[in-house]
Amino acid sequence: MVRYNPVTEGVLARLSEAVGAENVEADEETLDRYKTDEETDPKYFHKPEVVVLPGSTEEVAAVMKIANSCKVPVTPRSAGTSVSCGAIPVYGGIVMLLERMDKIIELNKEAMYMVVEAGARTVDIQKAANEAGMLYAGDPCSAESCLIGGNVATNAGGNKAVRYGTTRHQVYSIEVVTPQGKIVELGQRLKKCSTGYCLEQLVMGSEGTLGIITKATLKLMPLCPYRFDMLAIFTDMEKAVNMVPHLIKAGLDPTSVEFMDNNFVRAACDFVEIKLPHYEDGSYVIVTVETYSEDELEMKMEKLDEICTACGATDVLEADDRVWTVRKNALEGSKALSKVSTSEDLVVPIDKIALCINTLTEMSKKYSFRLFCLAHAGDGNLHFQILKGDMDNEKWVDELSRFHKEAYAYVYSLGGRLSGEHGIGYKKLYAMEEYTDTVEMEIMKDIKRALDPNLILNPGKLINVTEKSQA
Amino acid sequence: MVRYNPVTEGVLARLSEAVGAENVEADEETLDRYKTDEETDPKYFHKPEVVVLPGSTEEVAAVMKIANSCKVPVTPRSAGTSVSCGAIPVYGGIVMLLERMDKIIELNKEAMYMVVEAGARTVDIQKAANEAGMLYAGDPCSAESCLIGGNVATNAGGNKAVRYGTTRHQVYSIEVVTPQGKIVELGQRLKKCSTGYCLEQLVMGSEGTLGIITKATLKLMPLCPYRFDMLAIFTDMEKAVNMVPHLIKAGLDPTSVEFMDNNFVRAACDFVEIKLPHYEDGSYVIVTVETYSEDELEMKMEKLDEICTACGATDVLEADDRVWTVRKNALEGSKALSKVSTSEDLVVPIDKIALCINTLTEMSKKYSFRLFCLAHAGDGNLHFQILKGDMDNEKWVDELSRFHKEAYAYVYSLGGRLSGEHGIGYKKLYAMEEYTDTVEMEIMKDIKRALDPNLILNPGKLINVTEKSQA
Repeated sequence: MVRYNPVTEGVLARLSEAVGAENVEADEETLDRYKTDEETDPKYFHKPEVVVLPGSTEEVAAVMKIANSCKVPVTPRSAGTSVSCGAIPVYGGIVMLLERMDKIIELNKEAMYMVVEAGARTVDIQKAANEAGMLYAGDPCSAESCLIGGNVATNAGGNKAVRYGTTRHQVYSIEVVTPQGKIVELGQRLKKCSTGYCLEQLVMGSEGTLGIITKATLKLMPLCPYRFDMLAIFTDMEKAVNMVPHLIKAGLDPTSVEFMDNNFVRAACDFVEIKLPHYEDGSYVIVTVETYSEDELEMKMEKLDEICTACGATDVLEADDRVWTVRKNALEGSKALSKVSTSEDLVVPIDKIALCINTLTEMSKKYSFRLFCLAHAGDGNLHFQILKGDMDNEKWVDELSRFHKEAYAYVYSLGGRLSGEHGIGYKKLYAMEEYTDTVEMEIMKDIKRALDPNLILNPGKLINVTEKSQA
Repeated sequence: MVRYNPVTEGVLARLSEAVGAENVEADEETLDRYKTDEETDPKYFHKPEVVVLPGSTEEVAAVMKIANSCKVPVTPRSAGTSVSCGAIPVYGGIVMLLERMDKIIELNKEAMYMVVEAGARTVDIQKAANEAGMLYAGDPCSAESCLIGGNVATNAGGNKAVRYGTTRHQVYSIEVVTPQGKIVELGQRLKKCSTGYCLEQLVMGSEGTLGIITKATLKLMPLCPYRFDMLAIFTDMEKAVNMVPHLIKAGLDPTSVEFMDNNFVRAACDFVEIKLPHYEDGSYVIVTVETYSEDELEMKMEKLDEICTACGATDVLEADDRVWTVRKNALEGSKALSKVSTSEDLVVPIDKIALCINTLTEMSKKYSFRLFCLAHAGDGNLHFQILKGDMDNEKWVDELSRFHKEAYAYVYSLGGRLSGEHGIGYKKLYAMEEYTDTVEMEIMKDIKRALDPNLILNPGKLINVTEKSQA
């Protein structure tokens, strides 16, 4: 366990000097607000000692210098949409909000890139790109509310990752403030580079433990003018999930391939009061294909239809807005059925997804909870929702822990990992320690210690690191 | 300067025990052979004290344990095709050859991946993929002779990078032996992952300074059945280079876009004794487009033709084998004109490539050497060949150094870098130190020291690092 120093009056004064007194908040109401993010279970809550709102990279750097010299922990916070307790200040100290730094600095249509501050909203970035006839392909499901800095720090995914990859694939370079308060640009706006270590990819996805991302240069691409959304309904769930690898291998290059089991279909349809076909017995696969030409679209639509039929679809329809409304409300729908529930973010190789969904669904049957399955199936990312229902608390905790043990070990045996897009944060730290290869974990810790010797940056997240002498 | 220990009789005995006496070579002839790679200038030569040929990952690990405990430097060597002195054992010690580990371990067509040992030849990997109807998209120009381990370690490029990216984008995961002789698998065969630091991308492209890559799991994709090669000839070089960004932005997704200035056209045509159109005054842009359907190919061919015409091409032809023969012999052709020459591997953002070629060509005119320009234009990677001709040595060294100063500073001012695909190695270390941002360089050094505290792995390459106390 690392010992940190408290945020004293002296520290507060220095912070006020660095970012302006109006941007340093230490009243109880504010501190209470930042004790959690999307997390609702009080056992994870931790209050910060102060909340600071720097307005520039230089101010972020000034705060880091103070924190580092005083050995006060800093938890950077984006929109607070983490479902892994990624924004909870586990060791108190400073919560740093990046939301004042919300500018889109440059959109260069000719050279197809965009420079944004960390606090810019993802949806605003997407819109600005679209208005210029371009696509910013990062699209986490929380795009409406989340900020780009958090997307980059967690390597956020979403349902377009099957075609475009995750956030780390949309970024040329990042401006980073180091734990010591130095400012550096990592990465380059280049298609090719063999000039030194690939530090930008190291920092992206490190969940704010190696540096604070203050700016990002994002890739843009031409917008596809043609689009088709298709819903394939299967009364046999196994057939539905078995279709996924066929879609990927056929060269269709779909923008998204989403799977909902019948539990989710019912829950979501009920929640939004829309009755879709085979509500009672259907598992859904929703496929989006986008193209640059009409001919290509038609060709792909035909091919898609062939595959669905060959794979035993009961019905194949165009997926209209109602279908997407149901999909987008799946999680809320399931939550309406159980006051307490928990979601998983497991990821497996795409060729293992059918096997994994079938096995875990089967595995869940010996427990009393209900397991619903939603998946960004095209990229192997499974979101199981586990519903407590009216089970008593002790039993719930015990069942969940036994199921996790079984399920995680199984997922790792398939070459999978704990998190496809939500990150490890504070919530899954125990599991990260348990399932990660020892040598890999040692390397991560060596890097963390090398870059943040005082361990002040986002402690308690992703890796459980102590000073070398204590290790 | 780091002090290493010599390879004593005791070390030799331990190495023999680790890999078998027949795989430890210390005769003068062998040592002499490994004093260099593609480099021909004796000022860079350094002889190893011993050459070892491990036959398995475990043997690589055993060698590293010995080297680390004895503080003997290790230079891993792939096919020795480096043009940056990447395989030269600058501090003597052990040269480790990976060539005995040459197996293709698995090719999984269904799941579209391939597992190979580090010593597998790139061309054999490409062929194995093709025979299965798949594409391995890594394709450095030395594919015939190079080994995959070296490709991954240097993040090798090639002329298909414009469509597929460089080697680092073709790899799911790597098996790595750490400087301490531990074995670890970094990365995962996943489309999405937010589970810990992205260590595989850190090690890839680190030129064997952070770990020895012993295996790689490579991505495969469906082979495009349709292909078209086009040669656009321009009598105005500026118009030729100005066309490149238009090609990229038009959504044609070309597999390669190669540029040759008229110097190279002449030299290569003379060398292979093929007379192509506008041999006397033409700059060439060769474009390859590959598609999954005939319709798409036709559509793209038309579009391509339109763009070439709009950009002022003098002539647009199908690029047959003769054109590719000329392209592939460009470098040899230029070398025939000057016994001594040197090549650059600069890279700039794609929208700056025309400006950069024009500016550097102009800049070169005040010098007495001749500058030829060849470029993987589609990905911004410039290969200038600088020909000494009959200039005297002192003048050559002076002119080259003055030109480098000017040219590198200019390239960095455009957001470019020293190396697009050849790496830094030993040869460009001085420039790396000079042009890299101080904070970025510090981070690299901190990571190197953290992962290889004895600094035994490939010292003298990429970064000039000393023990912390000396730093």
